[in-house]
Amino acid sequence: MAEKHPNVLWIMADQLRFDYLSCYGHPHLHTPHIDALAKRGVKFNKAYVQSPVCGPSRMSAYTGRYVRSHGSTWNGMPLRVGEPTLGDHLRQSGARAVLVGKTHMTADAEGMAWLGIDPKSEIGVSRSQCGFDPFERDDGLHPDSLRQNWSAYDDYLEAQGYKSDNPWGDFANSGKDADGDLLSAWLLKNSRLAANVPEEHSETAYMTDRAIAFMQGAITDDRPWVCHLSYIKPHWPYIVPAPYHDMYCERDIVDPVRSDAERDTSHPLMRAYLDARVCKSFSRDMVREHVIPAYMGLIKQLDDNLGRLFAWMESKGLSDNTIVAFTSDHGDYMGDHWMGDKDFYHEMAVKVPLIIADPRPEADRTRGSVSEDLVEMIDLAPTFMAATGCPPKPHIVEGRDLTPILHGKQGFSRRYVISEHDYHWSEMARTLEVPQEDAHTTMIFDGRWKYIRCEGFRPILFDLVTDPSELTDLGGSEDTTHIAARARMESALLTWATRHHSRITATSEVLDRQKKSAQTGILIGFWDEAEYEEASGIAFRDLKPVGRP
Amino acid sequence: MAEKHPNVLWIMADQLRFDYLSCYGHPHLHTPHIDALAKRGVKFNKAYVQSPVCGPSRMSAYTGRYVRSHGSTWNGMPLRVGEPTLGDHLRQSGARAVLVGKTHMTADAEGMAWLGIDPKSEIGVSRSQCGFDPFERDDGLHPDSLRQNWSAYDDYLEAQGYKSDNPWGDFANSGKDADGDLLSAWLLKNSRLAANVPEEHSETAYMTDRAIAFMQGAITDDRPWVCHLSYIKPHWPYIVPAPYHDMYCERDIVDPVRSDAERDTSHPLMRAYLDARVCKSFSRDMVREHVIPAYMGLIKQLDDNLGRLFAWMESKGLSDNTIVAFTSDHGDYMGDHWMGDKDFYHEMAVKVPLIIADPRPEADRTRGSVSEDLVEMIDLAPTFMAATGCPPKPHIVEGRDLTPILHGKQGFSRRYVISEHDYHWSEMARTLEVPQEDAHTTMIFDGRWKYIRCEGFRPILFDLVTDPSELTDLGGSEDTTHIAARARMESALLTWATRHHSRITATSEVLDRQKKSAQTGILIGFWDEAEYEEASGIAFRDLKPVGRP
Repeated sequence: MAEKHPNVLWIMADQLRFDYLSCYGHPHLHTPHIDALAKRGVKFNKAYVQSPVCGPSRMSAYTGRYVRSHGSTWNGMPLRVGEPTLGDHLRQSGARAVLVGKTHMTADAEGMAWLGIDPKSEIGVSRSQCGFDPFERDDGLHPDSLRQNWSAYDDYLEAQGYKSDNPWGDFANSGKDADGDLLSAWLLKNSRLAANVPEEHSETAYMTDRAIAFMQGAITDDRPWVCHLSYIKPHWPYIVPAPYHDMYCERDIVDPVRSDAERDTSHPLMRAYLDARVCKSFSRDMVREHVIPAYMGLIKQLDDNLGRLFAWMESKGLSDNTIVAFTSDHGDYMGDHWMGDKDFYHEMAVKVPLIIADPRPEADRTRGSVSEDLVEMIDLAPTFMAATGCPPKPHIVEGRDLTPILHGKQGFSRRYVISEHDYHWSEMARTLEVPQEDAHTTMIFDGRWKYIRCEGFRPILFDLVTDPSELTDLGGSEDTTHIAARARMESALLTWATRHHSRITATSEVLDRQKKSAQTGILIGFWDEAEYEEASGIAFRDLKPVGRP
Repeated sequence: MAEKHPNVLWIMADQLRFDYLSCYGHPHLHTPHIDALAKRGVKFNKAYVQSPVCGPSRMSAYTGRYVRSHGSTWNGMPLRVGEPTLGDHLRQSGARAVLVGKTHMTADAEGMAWLGIDPKSEIGVSRSQCGFDPFERDDGLHPDSLRQNWSAYDDYLEAQGYKSDNPWGDFANSGKDADGDLLSAWLLKNSRLAANVPEEHSETAYMTDRAIAFMQGAITDDRPWVCHLSYIKPHWPYIVPAPYHDMYCERDIVDPVRSDAERDTSHPLMRAYLDARVCKSFSRDMVREHVIPAYMGLIKQLDDNLGRLFAWMESKGLSDNTIVAFTSDHGDYMGDHWMGDKDFYHEMAVKVPLIIADPRPEADRTRGSVSEDLVEMIDLAPTFMAATGCPPKPHIVEGRDLTPILHGKQGFSRRYVISEHDYHWSEMARTLEVPQEDAHTTMIFDGRWKYIRCEGFRPILFDLVTDPSELTDLGGSEDTTHIAARARMESALLTWATRHHSRITATSEVLDRQKKSAQTGILIGFWDEAEYEEASGIAFRDLKPVGRP
């Protein structure tokens, strides 16, 4: 009898800080449903994304590969056709990866044309959708100027009676002032208005409904599935419907993590970050105090919707055979370290919440536990592959299966987590006149030392044991301990950087085949028949010619 | 009027040491036709391949990319479908890359099947042939046990009356002893016999004929071409037809480059190399003294055939509009350093001859000159692209255009050459029990210091200024000069290793697009309309909605 595998519901929020959940310690923002998920599973305290920004973080998550391997280093940079994805591996095993929401995938149209792949064919759609079956594809930002972003959600809003040239913008992401004027939440001053749409028609509620619709339909489908439920919120525009819009206020805001000394940084790249517009913007207390309560409201709303979702799954008996994973693609500075948005490596930007609730009996022993293992987002792909019975692909997938952690066994180890960032597009690159090919940074973190290589500049170094708030940059310190730490981390970075990562055709069959060349009759170094026979155990004359095929 | 571009004849010998040509200093082996080519062009004294073994060296040559980028790290490892080649770039510009001979390409059958590419379609054939149009595809080794290696050359031999179950083996690569018995040149003792085929029907002559046939046909075809004439010789089996088989003898052999001290190496990987069968075999003076004259004969025969080829081209007026490049895919230890065959980084293995004769007037000023620039095999692809009018692809091609050197201008610079090697298949990996994913080495050379990173072991270091014969390994030296040199080279290696190389969709259009997101209406960090307008020059209300597409 074939082994029955669980399905996987892989939930991702966008731009959700790990410390904005009560199970991760927020004193005022209570997220009981996510907390309950943590009690059913394992909460990871040290989960890190492979780039602190949407696009490359997700491309890494969906391929199980580092950014330096898949090459989609920034938002909108196409993932090269030919990069294998989680969906591809699952499909080979008769399972599927299904999308409900955002991927931030940009199709490699040129690459597909070069290889003669019709974008409308099944293969072409799969390539264009990063290996997913797109049950619902919605990357969530519909600026007025981009016509092509009209989505099924806009159709839905129209059907509910919310008609405009941009329903997403005018209803879900605007609010009305006291005079009834519509104000866009692209502008931060409008963050505290109630979004111009009832909660049940907001993006978060809609995407939850869509996930339910998928799972309902999948009940009668035998194929194992990994459903990626990928919410756009709490990513900006920061606006949330009533009653969440005024559920929190300034009193509920945790003090910022920053020091005056940080503003005196001698590091040219950090100085350029601090001088960039979005960082200066969020350094203003009036901005963060205005926006954070809306951000909190969005998270509270998300938690309530997840409660609805989990209750529905329970009612349908799906909880017993569905692994539920919850995470985020990166964090949000919100003024900490005098910075805004994301794009660098302090904990609140590069660390993410990660909770995995595995219903199988093997996971009983770890329910409600906390893991301090260093894990990476790219570990999720091989974990889901293992769960759905898909054979491992160590020559392609760089992440490591987390199942041993979930099942309380030996077998998982990671000494370092890595994250990368390409800032060629930014003010910082322009200010410093860094050529686009050099505008990149790499973080390597061992749980204590966070080393950030900045091409063309000195490194940055934090000691999270003596300085857990990451306020003191030791990258230029002449203390021998710090010199030694930097040397050690550089050496580890070189080991990672020189590891095979493009050798994706090196299946075990290919590797084994290459060890056998002497037996195939391709010979070098043998003086005579006797030497050959002694070395190979085959008589030379027995290498018979086989003639014309 | 459209600019007329020259064609390119890219000649590659296999396993030809740079120092086995008279223009590179061999005292006894006179290669007047290759020497004459050098007088018509530029001879490069410091050209290095990106892996010291056939398959990966060639995959790098044909893509213009390092091994760590294309991932085909060993012979027989398929080049992943999706890796762009020289032929692909040329095709986009209406030019073509045509093959006459060996590429050592292994098609990515699984990858093609995954992307729905029919191997027999035009695209499929191109993918399978590494981007080349295969006028003649022949990888040159036809061991008895591999049926599928029957080639057009075997048909040719049969048509000339040389019939057997393996004409390549029995005629071109065997000799007859005094009793008339056929002896195979897979075994080194048979190297000095005359090959069992007249010179004009040998592989070298045949492939020369095929190149002539291609160029004859191309005279009436308007498309610019790069013809890759790729000989298998002087790669083993080491046997050559009369009169070359006894043209050289022991007197003509240059003394080996080796010292007794090398045999006492403390480096575990070097020890494992020295203990490997092929190295022990060629360490025997009786082996090298027996084989080298045959090796020399093969090179002499190659030079004579190139003389015939160049004379034919001259007679057809092709010399005036064809750039001729001559090189090798790697060298041959032949007992130097107590080693045999290739697979490591001493000069005689990793440095290759490179001569480029450019007939254009811009190259007049450098005719007959010698370049001491550090160049890599991967520089040939962008050089040929430039010559044939193909726009550069700096986001894909890692080599650098050599045209400035050929035309005596500023504009070329390289501080380091890099080469990589995957030894997972070897005795050394088995002896040392190195896991397959760790069995790799990387060389970085700045013209003086040759640093070899050996994963899991200490590095190896040679100082070619004080030790041009590379007899003294300074990799473990505690001399501060050597410590500093190793640190400097490691740092350079880290810079190279962290450089973008998978970001092949990063065209300049894509890069430019990503700088403009604020103008597309995707906004973060703006408090109000005034801030937005001040930063962007656009009035917020002018970001008009565009409605349903």
